[in-house]
Amino acid sequence: MTSAFPTGLTARAIETGDVLAPQFDRNGLIPAVATDAATGEVLMLAWMNAEALARTIETREAHYFSRSRNSLWRKGETSGHTQRVEEIRVDCDQDAVWLKVTPQGGGCVCHTGARSCFYRRVDDRGALIPASQH
Amino acid sequence: MTSAFPTGLTARAIETGDVLAPQFDRNGLIPAVATDAATGEVLMLAWMNAEALARTIETREAHYFSRSRNSLWRKGETSGHTQRVEEIRVDCDQDAVWLKVTPQGGGCVCHTGARSCFYRRVDDRGALIPASQH
Repeated sequence: MTSAFPTGLTARAIETGDVLAPQFDRNGLIPAVATDAATGEVLMLAWMNAEALARTIETREAHYFSRSRNSLWRKGETSGHTQRVEEIRVDCDQDAVWLKVTPQGGGCVCHTGARSCFYRRVDDRGALIPASQH
Repeated sequence: MTSAFPTGLTARAIETGDVLAPQFDRNGLIPAVATDAATGEVLMLAWMNAEALARTIETREAHYFSRSRNSLWRKGETSGHTQRVEEIRVDCDQDAVWLKVTPQGGGCVCHTGARSCFYRRVDDRGALIPASQH
């Protein structure tokens, strides 16, 4: 499989068909949300370009596109916190990706050392407080 | 609470502080992933502007920004499929939002009538097939 996904499909084909035709934005990126396959917790939201998505499908290891480094990013390539991909979904209009993953290497996901990047919640006054983790 | 969120915080304050300072993109938007508070299923990925986020915090009903209509969108305002917001989280660098919601009005989320917008998964050959729903 190459990273050249089909383009030009009808809205109906995109919504109801069996052809993966991700709708990358003008920067060639699509948002990808990763959840823990075991707990359902949202771990992170990152971005993929066509190559990152293709490699994720091929290798079943999560690859993203680092907007800060402007390069392909195999999650955990330096930290060891790779993500084994159990399932890949796309949404109705194929402009978002959902990965169910099993975190490897101890289970940290966030560069802060947290298990999930979403470690704070908004309280009733609009301030941030620690969120309960799984 | 107004929709004017603070700007200009340090990276450290954004990552570790208690001040909600969402990092909207150049279009004034931030991606928001909604999961089912009961099952953990990812229901949809949409976008919020500052007003949508502020109204979501105030009302505990999910508001998004419709990029196609270029306007504030109270989820379910026409369909009745509103979302009661149980919890709002932000990620480490505050450029993504996670809503845990309880779908109202029968539980449909997607305009196709599906419970989740993510009703297809990618199979081993890279084609789309129906995904099991909760």
